[in-house]
Amino acid sequence: MRNLKLFSADDHIIEPAHVWQTRVPAAMRDRAPHVVEEDGLEYWEYEDQRGTTMGLNAVAGQDHRAISPDPVRFSDMMLGAYDPTQRAKDMLADGVLASVLFPTLPRFAGTLFLDFEDKDLAHACVRAYNDYVIEEWCPAGPPGLFVPTVITTLWDPVAAAAEIHRCADLGARALSFPENSVPLGLPSYWDESWNPVWQACQDRDVVLCLHIGTSGEVPKPTPEAPAMLSFTLLQVGSIISSVNLMMSPVCRAYPDLKFVFSEGGIGWLPNAIERADRMWLRHKHYSGLDDVLPSEVFRRNMYLCMIEEPVCLKYRHDIGVDRIMWECDYPHTDSTWPDSQRTANEVFDAAGVPDDEVEAISYGNAERVFNWNIADPELAFGTAVAT
Amino acid sequence: MRNLKLFSADDHIIEPAHVWQTRVPAAMRDRAPHVVEEDGLEYWEYEDQRGTTMGLNAVAGQDHRAISPDPVRFSDMMLGAYDPTQRAKDMLADGVLASVLFPTLPRFAGTLFLDFEDKDLAHACVRAYNDYVIEEWCPAGPPGLFVPTVITTLWDPVAAAAEIHRCADLGARALSFPENSVPLGLPSYWDESWNPVWQACQDRDVVLCLHIGTSGEVPKPTPEAPAMLSFTLLQVGSIISSVNLMMSPVCRAYPDLKFVFSEGGIGWLPNAIERADRMWLRHKHYSGLDDVLPSEVFRRNMYLCMIEEPVCLKYRHDIGVDRIMWECDYPHTDSTWPDSQRTANEVFDAAGVPDDEVEAISYGNAERVFNWNIADPELAFGTAVAT
Repeated sequence: MRNLKLFSADDHIIEPAHVWQTRVPAAMRDRAPHVVEEDGLEYWEYEDQRGTTMGLNAVAGQDHRAISPDPVRFSDMMLGAYDPTQRAKDMLADGVLASVLFPTLPRFAGTLFLDFEDKDLAHACVRAYNDYVIEEWCPAGPPGLFVPTVITTLWDPVAAAAEIHRCADLGARALSFPENSVPLGLPSYWDESWNPVWQACQDRDVVLCLHIGTSGEVPKPTPEAPAMLSFTLLQVGSIISSVNLMMSPVCRAYPDLKFVFSEGGIGWLPNAIERADRMWLRHKHYSGLDDVLPSEVFRRNMYLCMIEEPVCLKYRHDIGVDRIMWECDYPHTDSTWPDSQRTANEVFDAAGVPDDEVEAISYGNAERVFNWNIADPELAFGTAVAT
Repeated sequence: MRNLKLFSADDHIIEPAHVWQTRVPAAMRDRAPHVVEEDGLEYWEYEDQRGTTMGLNAVAGQDHRAISPDPVRFSDMMLGAYDPTQRAKDMLADGVLASVLFPTLPRFAGTLFLDFEDKDLAHACVRAYNDYVIEEWCPAGPPGLFVPTVITTLWDPVAAAAEIHRCADLGARALSFPENSVPLGLPSYWDESWNPVWQACQDRDVVLCLHIGTSGEVPKPTPEAPAMLSFTLLQVGSIISSVNLMMSPVCRAYPDLKFVFSEGGIGWLPNAIERADRMWLRHKHYSGLDDVLPSEVFRRNMYLCMIEEPVCLKYRHDIGVDRIMWECDYPHTDSTWPDSQRTANEVFDAAGVPDDEVEAISYGNAERVFNWNIADPELAFGTAVAT
């Protein structure tokens, strides 16, 4: 079995209880997120809201017969879910040498704070999360391991651009951003009010990561079906988001932007661009559209992420080998951890991927997209790592 | 170029003005659909509603630079849109020897009548449409050309089953049915209230055709985007519908049902089943699900339709060659007519499809699925056909 150098384009931080209580201005702390205990369970509270912690969020590596979506306490979770020092050990032990990180309590694209009534508090919470990631989480690993990924103030694109610049100055390489703003009650991405965000990301080479489930819409075709049906269909959000952006003015006006569809999968892409191009050619005349095909926008501005798709990875040349990145999804139930080496090797072998393409998909593409060098492979493969 | 025998799994009737006025009981006729003229335009009126006719519905073969979605009069449409004798000539001239037909005014799955206040009137309108198709439209072509496809009373599954039996007695082979009932305000397909419909279709070997756009939900991620964006994303309805049904109890309880995803395309399927199986295996334990994988349900109970997918047709062995049917989509803007022979040959050649698989996809699979023999090929290729 090859020792693969793995760059994970999608993992998740479970925020420890102190994130906002140590970083939000003191006068705001009682309304900022904090953990309370009641009847033996732990809850997040913020403003006048209370949330729960999902069991499925921190179960990587567990037997599938044991997992369930019941709420858990921090002490029930794997330590690497919320402790960055342990996370670093877990990642390196699995041969994962770089990791793009998404938030949990703020939701993957920070949309929790969009719902806050007090937008000064919300802004402070966004900054606190970003500072925590950049100042505490990322430095807990060796250089190269944790890719600083931030969120921003979605309700104010001008302030959002300023926060992107502030974080880029501190080393941020990626922005977690919603798949679609419309279901969140915001202007669409076709509206030029978002231009400050696009401009900031293009100017600072900050990658826009659009994770599944961030549009505020989860496909739920049957209310009484198990949640698994919605989990399966979450990729539809990536299809809709990518086609929307391929056809939109965004990448036509900002041709150096990079959009990543995190946890979106890869197998649907050939169909999406084949159909989008066909429709573009048939309807562009009366729709007042230009000659740049949706597929050309995809091949210039967009990237996809794969956990395990041994069947659809065979279609990589129709997708573009340079468009595909591997992801681990630690510590969620879909994660390959702690068997990333074995499962990734099996997927590459099943799809008959030659070595140069394995290198591109397992880490090379992500190094180029995020403009980021992975951690020293000796840390994973040269020394014993305690887990 | 091969002379292909083509079985189109999806074409559209534009109903002429007399359909309901000659068939609905006289006392109901003033509230049944009828055409009125105002300011030089023609409109359908029914109950207290007024609809328009979409230009894009009857433009097959037109230069794409000339088409637009503006309302048109019958006299502006191609005659074959609403005249079955001309339709037969058009089909045969293009080498199309069988054609599954969907309604237009009632919407593809007859959901217009679901919205009627007067359900007796609605029931009469469903019967009138079905009788029109079976008694007038289909006999206007040679034996084998027009496959009798009907609608039913969606608001009453027991009456719906009775209508399916009545139409099956008269020769109906297919039922146009919604992709998803939930957005239409009806119980989900996981609810056993639909069992009479499933039972009737299974007992009479009537194929359930779930056309894109029939769930009452059109993906519209950006309100101000051209309609083309929604057209492109309509296939998402097939993805959601098929995965929903693969995971549902329906085909587990009625293992001989046949579901066809009309105009749904083919290229997304390998990804859908790869992901659905993966999620099933990971979540079945706490979800209380059985061991029959979603992909097994697909390969037993479901079929897909392709207009032109030269790229994704290469994936046919991951889909199942026996699952794929060709469609013409006459007289809509996506139609291959009047170049079906050329375009189908080009698609098969681009995807490197051998002759036996060409026969299966172009007509053989559909003959088996619909239990229907195509018209005599001599009618298309042996004699000159006036158009």
